Amino acid sequence: MGADPRFFPAQGPFSLGAIAEAAGARLAADAARIVTGVAPLGHAGPDDVAYAEGRRNLPALRATRAGAVLLAPGSEGELPEGCVALVCDQPQLAFARVAALFHPRPAPVPGIHPTAVIATDASIGAGCEVGPGAVIGAGAEIGPGCIIGPHAVVGPGCVLGAGSVLRAHASMLHCLAGAAVVLNEGARVGNEGFGFVTTKAGQHVTVPQVGRVILGDGVEIGANSCVDRGAGGDTVLGPGTRLDNLVQVGHNVRTGRGCVIVAQVGIAGSVELGDFVVIAGQAGIAGHLTLGDGVRVGAQAGVASSVPAGTDVVGSPAWPAKEFMRAIMWLRRQAAPKGNGKSGGTP
Amino acid sequence: MGADPRFFPAQGPFSLGAIAEAAGARLAADAARIVTGVAPLGHAGPDDVAYAEGRRNLPALRATRAGAVLLAPGSEGELPEGCVALVCDQPQLAFARVAALFHPRPAPVPGIHPTAVIATDASIGAGCEVGPGAVIGAGAEIGPGCIIGPHAVVGPGCVLGAGSVLRAHASMLHCLAGAAVVLNEGARVGNEGFGFVTTKAGQHVTVPQVGRVILGDGVEIGANSCVDRGAGGDTVLGPGTRLDNLVQVGHNVRTGRGCVIVAQVGIAGSVELGDFVVIAGQAGIAGHLTLGDGVRVGAQAGVASSVPAGTDVVGSPAWPAKEFMRAIMWLRRQAAPKGNGKSGGTP
Amino acid sequence: MGADPRFFPAQGPFSLGAIAEAAGARLAADAARIVTGVAPLGHAGPDDVAYAEGRRNLPALRATRAGAVLLAPGSEGELPEGCVALVCDQPQLAFARVAALFHPRPAPVPGIHPTAVIATDASIGAGCEVGPGAVIGAGAEIGPGCIIGPHAVVGPGCVLGAGSVLRAHASMLHCLAGAAVVLNEGARVGNEGFGFVTTKAGQHVTVPQVGRVILGDGVEIGANSCVDRGAGGDTVLGPGTRLDNLVQVGHNVRTGRGCVIVAQVGIAGSVELGDFVVIAGQAGIAGHLTLGDGVRVGAQAGVASSVPAGTDVVGSPAWPAKEFMRAIMWLRRQAAPKGNGKSGGTP
Repeated sequence: MGADPRFFPAQGPFSLGAIAEAAGARLAADAARIVTGVAPLGHAGPDDVAYAEGRRNLPALRATRAGAVLLAPGSEGELPEGCVALVCDQPQLAFARVAALFHPRPAPVPGIHPTAVIATDASIGAGCEVGPGAVIGAGAEIGPGCIIGPHAVVGPGCVLGAGSVLRAHASMLHCLAGAAVVLNEGARVGNEGFGFVTTKAGQHVTVPQVGRVILGDGVEIGANSCVDRGAGGDTVLGPGTRLDNLVQVGHNVRTGRGCVIVAQVGIAGSVELGDFVVIAGQAGIAGHLTLGDGVRVGAQAGVASSVPAGTDVVGSPAWPAKEFMRAIMWLRRQAAPKGNGKSGGTP
Repeated sequence: MGADPRFFPAQGPFSLGAIAEAAGARLAADAARIVTGVAPLGHAGPDDVAYAEGRRNLPALRATRAGAVLLAPGSEGELPEGCVALVCDQPQLAFARVAALFHPRPAPVPGIHPTAVIATDASIGAGCEVGPGAVIGAGAEIGPGCIIGPHAVVGPGCVLGAGSVLRAHASMLHCLAGAAVVLNEGARVGNEGFGFVTTKAGQHVTVPQVGRVILGDGVEIGANSCVDRGAGGDTVLGPGTRLDNLVQVGHNVRTGRGCVIVAQVGIAGSVELGDFVVIAGQAGIAGHLTLGDGVRVGAQAGVASSVPAGTDVVGSPAWPAKEFMRAIMWLRRQAAPKGNGKSGGTP
Repeated sequence: MGADPRFFPAQGPFSLGAIAEAAGARLAADAARIVTGVAPLGHAGPDDVAYAEGRRNLPALRATRAGAVLLAPGSEGELPEGCVALVCDQPQLAFARVAALFHPRPAPVPGIHPTAVIATDASIGAGCEVGPGAVIGAGAEIGPGCIIGPHAVVGPGCVLGAGSVLRAHASMLHCLAGAAVVLNEGARVGNEGFGFVTTKAGQHVTVPQVGRVILGDGVEIGANSCVDRGAGGDTVLGPGTRLDNLVQVGHNVRTGRGCVIVAQVGIAGSVELGDFVVIAGQAGIAGHLTLGDGVRVGAQAGVASSVPAGTDVVGSPAWPAKEFMRAIMWLRRQAAPKGNGKSGGTP
């Protein structure tokens, strides 16, 4: 069983030969056999392509009803009779490419909905789709082939590169965005940062937030996530950086290329991330810290000091992953009730 | 003092006899006495019904000015003179039912606002209210008696059962929803999940997310919460499941019946919850885990392994509640400064 | 380099004399010198005003190209030649005031967009700006000089004081708000709280939520934050209280004056905060607790019991900051591997 055609009508069908080419996979035979879609290993039928990666999928692989399976070299012998092996180095990556054959990202349906509100001096590139109620401000420049979803708001002066997508209710203000940028539903980019100074009498005086947001090519922002603009200077998300849903990015944060920020992470103001930093769900990074290239932060970690490149940290306050797990296991042993009913004490 | 009539005009008035019947409460006398609203014990006046449950409300009960109070058997003697006892097993539940007599969930005001944008082949059931700027996509089916609030978006092909409510700015895409479903303000259902594979060169390649969201009857989603659609296969919230605000539910999560997910919880992809699981605020559940029926997860817990039915877990990483509290107390004792000024050491 | 004039056209230019007056700063000479904007110390040029506060900015101060710098008494000697000292007690506060000279909060552009939907009996004060798609309900009262942004929704009966701002997609329901209130993009005020009672059969029965939200003068709510209305009685945010993005405030929470609630904090129902309470990012406060005046809660803390005025707490569960840090350091020492390869044990 593949995707519900009500929501995801499939392209194709395709021959296994075409599939193998898209996947960069090796195919021993059956290049002319036709498949009509993709599906998870456990749900796939004889007309579907599935994939298997890792030992924990072996039972599902042996039982699959899929017509063909993308898998790593050496696993071909596990396939049931009649199921075709598509052998490749990164089966999940190959699957992503095959799935995109059947389900490419929807192309814009060119046209501007009559209820959209577009400033007379805004420029809209060729082939754009502008949905109902979308608002595009004075002087904004939308590149060709963009989709501006229902009720999405593009503020005055913003620039959005070719092939970008703003989904329903997203808002983009004070922002210069590259090509192929995606703002998911309700994403908020370019908001006023949380910047103020408190008088001795306790009154909070706003510091005008007069910086921008710069989004590199291919940046994606999850649903209802927030990226504040710079206070002075810019907030910058490097090319290919992806934010999951409900993420908070404070003013003047800067990330390198390809960072991955999982749901509900909070990054305080002026943090700098290197390239390919990964921050797992609900973690928090305190202000003005630097995380080097390739740093990985565990879920719910609280990073309170800068982290050198290539380091994994976990815990709140965060410390190196190995030491943290050792301390937790030690604490559990120490605190466990003893035979004599005394808790704690010398081992 | 009851509810502000500007916002919450009350039905009624009702006799205490009618109140007792709605509440399933026993009334010794005064069945004809009239009351006009509900209020908290401390604010209620002689025309209001209040409730008291638990010992900590005893002082407020003895001092109340309420006309009648819903309370458990045995507490009648605590009531001030002239205040009528409505005796029942679950006073707060009875109060919910009485309050709903005075303040039923607002019924739709049938009609379609002229600024709503509705696809010609969408079907809208009898008696629906469709608000300003609401957008309903091609082929969508809205059951009878629904309210589609201002600027709410229902995507192409979605199905929404009878008596459901989408409040302002909610969005629903790639979703089949049962009856009496509620999406609160800004709730996001059916978003693209956080699914991609990274090439060896560091490029993130999106895995097309071609699953749906299935919402059972009576599911409620809090304001600005996000429920991603399945990657392949569905994300499913079982009947009666309730999500508070700012909750994140990843792709292919499945819950049983009546789960309760408190504000700012994050549930990673492919997690399975049994029936009546309760997850307290800001907790996180790592991907691919199973939490059995009746599991209760403490606030801010980080669940990193599956949890058997009926277990309470707390902490990050989460472990059984009793052991966690014992360890924390032990740690505090150990780490406390000693009389000799040495910290730590053997007790 | 100052602010991008595409997004932030500056007022001015101003003389240093005028700057000194706005800042409350002392100026030894050069009162007639002209400056055109503000910028961070490291980016400022000879026509900009910057500020320096604290020792860690000393290197940047010595190297700055700024025309003038706001700084504390005693630091004048660190300035490069030709850079003018503006001496004051709180340089960052002075900077906020100077920056607001150049970049005052944008004034409303009076007028009602033709696509706005305004109830016939709503009242809109003089000089208001009402954006595209804004929805203002029956009987709502908008004070003079407000900005109601694109697609913002003001519910029936709401009152909004003079000079307030609702940014794009914000919603306000069942709410009485003072003057100079700001709801940032996608903020949700007055939602239905998470209130229900569960029957013995496991059915969740909603308790009608018939309270309001009261926002004091100058309250600011961050992007995509949520403030639920009272269940019965009100949710109250005291004057000058500021919420960052993605904050959750449950029903019947009450705060004093000038509280500061950082991003992704969750405050459960019926919590009471005194004046000037500060809650750092991602912290959570359990229901029905009281935090006294001036309490400071650390990032990611989990507050599970009431906290007396003037106390700092951290950790989850939260305890006094000093004791927590001592315990964490002790645990790290204890759990560290020993020379003999035994982990843990007596020091």
